[in-house]
Amino acid sequence: MRIAVDLLGGDHAPAVVVDGALLACRIDPDLHLLLVGPAGVVEEALHAFSPVDRARVRTRVVAAAVGMGDAPARARHDTTVRAVAVAVGDGEADGFVSAGASGAVVTAAALALGRWTRRPALAATVPSLTGPVVLLDVGASTEPEPSVLIAHAALGAAYASVVHRVERPRVGLLSNGSEAGRGDQVRLAAAAGLARTPLPAGARHIGNVEGHDVPLGGPADVVVTDGFTGNVLLKGIEGAYALAGGRMPTDTAPRAAALLGVGGVAVVCHGAANGADVASGIGLAAHLCRINAIARLATAARKLVEVS
Amino acid sequence: MRIAVDLLGGDHAPAVVVDGALLACRIDPDLHLLLVGPAGVVEEALHAFSPVDRARVRTRVVAAAVGMGDAPARARHDTTVRAVAVAVGDGEADGFVSAGASGAVVTAAALALGRWTRRPALAATVPSLTGPVVLLDVGASTEPEPSVLIAHAALGAAYASVVHRVERPRVGLLSNGSEAGRGDQVRLAAAAGLARTPLPAGARHIGNVEGHDVPLGGPADVVVTDGFTGNVLLKGIEGAYALAGGRMPTDTAPRAAALLGVGGVAVVCHGAANGADVASGIGLAAHLCRINAIARLATAARKLVEVS
Repeated sequence: MRIAVDLLGGDHAPAVVVDGALLACRIDPDLHLLLVGPAGVVEEALHAFSPVDRARVRTRVVAAAVGMGDAPARARHDTTVRAVAVAVGDGEADGFVSAGASGAVVTAAALALGRWTRRPALAATVPSLTGPVVLLDVGASTEPEPSVLIAHAALGAAYASVVHRVERPRVGLLSNGSEAGRGDQVRLAAAAGLARTPLPAGARHIGNVEGHDVPLGGPADVVVTDGFTGNVLLKGIEGAYALAGGRMPTDTAPRAAALLGVGGVAVVCHGAANGADVASGIGLAAHLCRINAIARLATAARKLVEVS
Repeated sequence: MRIAVDLLGGDHAPAVVVDGALLACRIDPDLHLLLVGPAGVVEEALHAFSPVDRARVRTRVVAAAVGMGDAPARARHDTTVRAVAVAVGDGEADGFVSAGASGAVVTAAALALGRWTRRPALAATVPSLTGPVVLLDVGASTEPEPSVLIAHAALGAAYASVVHRVERPRVGLLSNGSEAGRGDQVRLAAAAGLARTPLPAGARHIGNVEGHDVPLGGPADVVVTDGFTGNVLLKGIEGAYALAGGRMPTDTAPRAAALLGVGGVAVVCHGAANGADVASGIGLAAHLCRINAIARLATAARKLVEVS
């Protein structure tokens, strides 16, 4: 598996990204990397690998990054995130990983790989007491729309089936109460739409779920929400774990999110990712490539969520 | 202090509400209660108190409740939540507590006590590493509106100053990134409005904060968001604490939310509250009465958030 890595993405780049790349290579002997960044950064990164591992690493020099405060459209220009996406689009890599701004990753991925749904979704996997919970969207787009929530329900169900091998995934709509009829206007419209929309992989819409159902698990394998709320919730859960004296339990779930609805493997790490998180993201990208996730997701969900 | 208690509010009512009332009386020797519920429930509750404490308890028989799945407008009718609110409006109690549906509490409180802002806000206090963080709205209203976020920023600042005695509270707008320009259209409009709106209590708008800034604290004393997102975030944080092996650290913060912008003390406990949580809510209501919080909030913020 050949994964392109954006050395300039994230708050602590390039140091933690290089750490993550080293760690990922140690964990996975079949991994090949394409490291993308400015000349000096790329050279230093290459020297961090042992002479043996260095044979598995290619590099590409791109000087500019999309900063966390930049507009996502900057990813249209010659930047590291665009270069890793283009590497996948051109077949030089099987997937890419960036810890940069998710809006920039979405823009770069949609341009280089194409998208088959109007709004691609970032899907995080949250470890819970009862197994992995797929939470989406966690930040690919921010405006809540009923039609997008319905499309993301289909994408999330397909992802839970393909990646977590959940049979007949239970799909819940995140709301401010579990009772039917709870939620804002967007949620009420989405709930009505979900009730009459077929979902892939034999998935069932089980109604509303609440914020605690994401970390605790139980009612749903897939929790659907808009990218604004999902991003706030995921970071809130991470913060609570940190305050409670530890990180999220990570043995059951990758510490990175997969971009769904684009024509290739794209993985986004947290902007505050450390080396182990980046390695987990690279591992997720390699896993998605190995199981042919994108084609299988498209087979399962594409008809339901096609660009309209 | 005389607090009216809705015996029928919450998932585990009336048992946990009675437990909470007993515990609150044990903790606070100056507390007087007005317990409101159906005849049998009220009678049983009264017998749970010792003969001495029973002198501090009055009762009122109201048979019907607003269920968690009912429309909030049901609180306009003869229900326990309406009766506790009316008791405050009529001067028979100094404040009221309910663990029922927050929409019903808002309706009952607005009718019985009046409101001086268009959308009252439920303010929770989240314990953090650096002190209490006031999070609002956590569910009084669900539709995000820039003008409501701005009014709630003023209410939250006044609350942090009056109740938590925070000097010059730092007010953050919850978003999906800390950088200026991050957020959905509602957040962008609210941020622009906050930049030109004076806040009470010498408060300062410090820009965007993220989900993890609520449990971890640090940048802001007050975090403003819409009631949908705030409800989801608060429950997500609670769930993460529960999974991490404990409840939220509670020595620094009440386990109930105060309704701000109405003409009296109204406290909402979590629907899943246990007895200690209800006691904490009763204690919060008594504290708000003792410090004359409503009048002081109105003095600080009313001019900025008046019903328009």
